[in-house]
Amino acid sequence: MKNQHQSNPKQAAGERAAGLVEDGMVVGLGTGSTTAYAIKEIGRRVADGLDILGVPTSYQSAFLAAQNGIPLTTLDEHPELDIDIDGADQIAGFSVIKGGGAAHTREKIVALSSKTFVVVADESKCSDILSHPVPLEVLPFALKLAIKQVIKLGGKVELRMGVSKDGPVISDNGNFIMDADFGKIDDPASLGEKLSQCCGIVEHGIFTGVDAVYIGKKDGSVEIKEA
Amino acid sequence: MKNQHQSNPKQAAGERAAGLVEDGMVVGLGTGSTTAYAIKEIGRRVADGLDILGVPTSYQSAFLAAQNGIPLTTLDEHPELDIDIDGADQIAGFSVIKGGGAAHTREKIVALSSKTFVVVADESKCSDILSHPVPLEVLPFALKLAIKQVIKLGGKVELRMGVSKDGPVISDNGNFIMDADFGKIDDPASLGEKLSQCCGIVEHGIFTGVDAVYIGKKDGSVEIKEA
Repeated sequence: MKNQHQSNPKQAAGERAAGLVEDGMVVGLGTGSTTAYAIKEIGRRVADGLDILGVPTSYQSAFLAAQNGIPLTTLDEHPELDIDIDGADQIAGFSVIKGGGAAHTREKIVALSSKTFVVVADESKCSDILSHPVPLEVLPFALKLAIKQVIKLGGKVELRMGVSKDGPVISDNGNFIMDADFGKIDDPASLGEKLSQCCGIVEHGIFTGVDAVYIGKKDGSVEIKEA
Repeated sequence: MKNQHQSNPKQAAGERAAGLVEDGMVVGLGTGSTTAYAIKEIGRRVADGLDILGVPTSYQSAFLAAQNGIPLTTLDEHPELDIDIDGADQIAGFSVIKGGGAAHTREKIVALSSKTFVVVADESKCSDILSHPVPLEVLPFALKLAIKQVIKLGGKVELRMGVSKDGPVISDNGNFIMDADFGKIDDPASLGEKLSQCCGIVEHGIFTGVDAVYIGKKDGSVEIKEA
């Protein structure tokens, strides 16, 4: 007989990574469906006496952490985090693409503020090579210039449109989100550097230098890879 | 006897550069005291029949352009400008530091959208080597991380505080402004690239690749340098 959580790869990965959190830590709380399981598990442990502070990467994770009784702090108060647990849209080795939830800018700020950055995902997110469209947070004022620069880098660009709102998605920082398809990305770090040079692009969704990856499998097991 | 405008180096430079604007052009309208003279002169020429459209780089330049009867458009409508006229805090060759007015992000977006980028200034802004503190537009969420990264690059950082508002200056894009002192900047392009890689820094105030510089002198003359 399986435990309920073992039948759900996302839940298995999220809850397993939540086990990395220890008393006294300041913890980055990622955004998305897999991380949500980690946040809920951390909340259960807080109810059992775990003494930690969370730094949310989005309104979504702040709301969820609050619902689950996790005391929150900010990067201003705690600029150095012990661990950050977050999801990914695609994983290849220790590079990932994030931003499906339009939160990659704050997610990257939190990840870079953390000693250890752990990615949780189900195995459907794993790939030999990154090829998922790269989310880009773009200043609305710079939309056309950003498109021009991304095309010059070989990307096919789509402005992400809202579903529960008319017009384009607006990020938690008040900006647009574009999804840029570069096909197979042979050198994620190099593409990331080029995207960082583009004026008007606030942040791109390529994250390199992940410290550990927790992959939930269909059989309920969790594969752990450490860099 | 001197003309009134010839006794004011900023006015001389701004008005002279305004002479570059021709019928049918789409014109970037910079921010600051010297550019204001260019905007006023363009407004006078529009009243005389000059047919152009302006793209403002800030609320300040939009207000001033409207006051002076210049019809405005946007980068969405006109993503390619013919000319952009803007000021600078410091000039060395064809590299400049901008952002004293907290507008350097939109200024750079407009400059990079223009076929020709002309800088206007009085001669007090000229230097052999750039050394002015570099304005940085920073996501409020990333303040501490941005400071850490800039210190790592050798900069001394100050968060720019408001005078007509309590707390930090907020840019037209809703972000903080930091001024980062790097001392003498031997390689502005290289420092600019490094600052662009910093997560949470939306844009820095180093502009390289200026096409022409119009320098107003104390004697009322204007020195013109073209790249």
